[in-house]
Amino acid sequence: MSQGAGAPTREDALALDAVDPLGGFRERFTLPKDVLYLDGNSLGALPAHTPERLRRMVEEEWGNGLIRSWNEAGWYDLPRGLGERLAPLVGAASGQVVVCDSTSVNLFKVLTAAMRLRPGRSTLISEVGSFPTDLYMTEGLVPARRRLIGRDGDSLADLLDDDTAVVLLSHVDYRTGRLQDMAAVTEQVHAAGALMVWDLCHSVGALPIELDACGADFAVGCGYKYLNGGPGAPAFLYAAARHHDAARQPLTGWFGHAEPFAMSPDYAPATGIGRFLTGTPPLLSFAGLDAALDVWADVDLERIRAKSLSLTSFFLRLTDALGLPTVTPRTPAERGSQISLRHEGAYAVVQALIARGVIGDFRAPDVMRFGFTPLYVSHADVFDAAEALREVLASGEWRDPRFAQRGAVT
Amino acid sequence: MSQGAGAPTREDALALDAVDPLGGFRERFTLPKDVLYLDGNSLGALPAHTPERLRRMVEEEWGNGLIRSWNEAGWYDLPRGLGERLAPLVGAASGQVVVCDSTSVNLFKVLTAAMRLRPGRSTLISEVGSFPTDLYMTEGLVPARRRLIGRDGDSLADLLDDDTAVVLLSHVDYRTGRLQDMAAVTEQVHAAGALMVWDLCHSVGALPIELDACGADFAVGCGYKYLNGGPGAPAFLYAAARHHDAARQPLTGWFGHAEPFAMSPDYAPATGIGRFLTGTPPLLSFAGLDAALDVWADVDLERIRAKSLSLTSFFLRLTDALGLPTVTPRTPAERGSQISLRHEGAYAVVQALIARGVIGDFRAPDVMRFGFTPLYVSHADVFDAAEALREVLASGEWRDPRFAQRGAVT
Repeated sequence: MSQGAGAPTREDALALDAVDPLGGFRERFTLPKDVLYLDGNSLGALPAHTPERLRRMVEEEWGNGLIRSWNEAGWYDLPRGLGERLAPLVGAASGQVVVCDSTSVNLFKVLTAAMRLRPGRSTLISEVGSFPTDLYMTEGLVPARRRLIGRDGDSLADLLDDDTAVVLLSHVDYRTGRLQDMAAVTEQVHAAGALMVWDLCHSVGALPIELDACGADFAVGCGYKYLNGGPGAPAFLYAAARHHDAARQPLTGWFGHAEPFAMSPDYAPATGIGRFLTGTPPLLSFAGLDAALDVWADVDLERIRAKSLSLTSFFLRLTDALGLPTVTPRTPAERGSQISLRHEGAYAVVQALIARGVIGDFRAPDVMRFGFTPLYVSHADVFDAAEALREVLASGEWRDPRFAQRGAVT
Repeated sequence: MSQGAGAPTREDALALDAVDPLGGFRERFTLPKDVLYLDGNSLGALPAHTPERLRRMVEEEWGNGLIRSWNEAGWYDLPRGLGERLAPLVGAASGQVVVCDSTSVNLFKVLTAAMRLRPGRSTLISEVGSFPTDLYMTEGLVPARRRLIGRDGDSLADLLDDDTAVVLLSHVDYRTGRLQDMAAVTEQVHAAGALMVWDLCHSVGALPIELDACGADFAVGCGYKYLNGGPGAPAFLYAAARHHDAARQPLTGWFGHAEPFAMSPDYAPATGIGRFLTGTPPLLSFAGLDAALDVWADVDLERIRAKSLSLTSFFLRLTDALGLPTVTPRTPAERGSQISLRHEGAYAVVQALIARGVIGDFRAPDVMRFGFTPLYVSHADVFDAAEALREVLASGEWRDPRFAQRGAVT
């Protein structure tokens, strides 16, 4: 197999990188030398200054400051403070984002709150291809009648009716990389009298997001993919200010209390977004996200989006030349920052690539997923990854039995 | 004010320390030189080897291993694996403890699961003096009729009836330090046909706990007090094996799925304790608890209990000599590892002590709390702390207006 005449060259890649306004961000990350990392959509890379932030949290704030650091090092303010720092990445005005818990737990909070804001309606609509935890968390909601876009060929328009309380959708589909039109979908859902909850896990940090401007009601997202907050980094939660006073979420822990240190036996929700907090935050993990947000403070999201589309378009041209089908939309405006290719031996091909130091990932049943993180991936990386893919397929090395063995996490 | 004739001396303290079989553990912690730390019941001290464990997690596992570390560094197994390491500290046989989320979130999971195991009963009994998050989380449960021991002078026996589904109590009261008789209370609750949930936040790591032997149904606890797992360290959750098959908790996230990477749209709970997991774990914080459990692997809990009672008894003799009333039971078998003293100026006295480097804490309205952590507190520390308390009261320095100003966390 060889590349077609229309395929770009490595010189093309280098020319694009030479004029990349984000090229300087690569040095702000620590990446292993022998790796081409195309899985930042699953776990972002390590910012170079994060180890020092962790050392400070552990040795100075915890070790020396001990309990005093809740006040003196600002620990108590971190859930709200990191929310404020994250807010510009999702187009949220002040006071509407907090960092806390996991995406799954935050979904439970916002879905329950949203359902309670639509009494008399009992249906929650999601999508059959959603990231599983989104669907699983809807099963824990009682009472909610659940309907799934795509399960019986139904579209959102088919399912929306006057019993619809809430619609939950992923902004970017984790498997296909398809990007929803947030403004149009939110408007469609509101027209049916329902509330809109967005899962931003696969879009935050990959493109500009305008929650306020789109009129979104609630959103959740994770800190460990494009944001680079570290493995299992704390998640975040957005609630539009207009819902704060009436919203009641069920995980009414002491961090969401109006006066947590009054130690009253009765719960009274904090004013504003604080009422969505629950328990004591895992602060070592918060330090990881805190450090990651230092990088984002210097980033222009329009440049992120432009480079992301350049990288994914470049990769598509290369994989088209290999004859590999994609499940990712070809129209740039309809995709996030990943390209998903289909191959009968997808799992083994991904493993063979990893053995060569090219890290993407596999999603059942037959998808190879490659994420392109504009802060630390270059067009040359994209070219080299596609070349490795070409060689793995052409040589047949992916058929080696050692690449068929599955680990716990695939 | 001077000490009475019966009060022990610093020489008495040194004599007790000279024969302390746990004395060697002090050097396994990094504590600031100018501090006497009597707040390990709120935030445990930094184990000396924890920074290196964090560095390894951040730089090697995350930075170099990237996504591969989910398999290769064992990240995926940490929630169950840390649960196994923690199990001996709570008297649990294998397969009944997981580390995950916060205490508040875990309370929601076990309380909901327990209520569902008693269909037809609707009452949840707790205690008016419980740590607030315990009470707040019960408010999020629908439907549950809540009754509180102590609110109208009622005892547990007064409230237990055939509508009681679940009883939730703290093993050690966070404010008074009172220790419940776990075996007797659990038996009493079971005799009424209800299930027993224990909050172990203020007892785990302070004394031997025998959940299995006492027949407890569920328990939760935190990793950042006596366990020394770091600020906001992940919490844990115990569910007796006999309940696993029937238990259904509501936070049905992908980490609790039978096959998380099959990416099925429908939830199927994992077999065993794994079904109590929810979202992706915050792994930097997990590394902190992982390191802390290295210390606990070498500790004899009977020795912890013996030294704890020696420290608290020694402190009581000293504060008795100062004429300070205590709300902590004088009978050793009825208390945990803290002494709570009452004083009209409790807040200011605690602040004045902190200014001298003696760190305890305040709990509203008038309690000074001093925790005694046998791994790194000596009898000489106790003597010196009591001496500082004597001087703060005798000099009247606590009346300085700067000690009256309250911070966010007190």
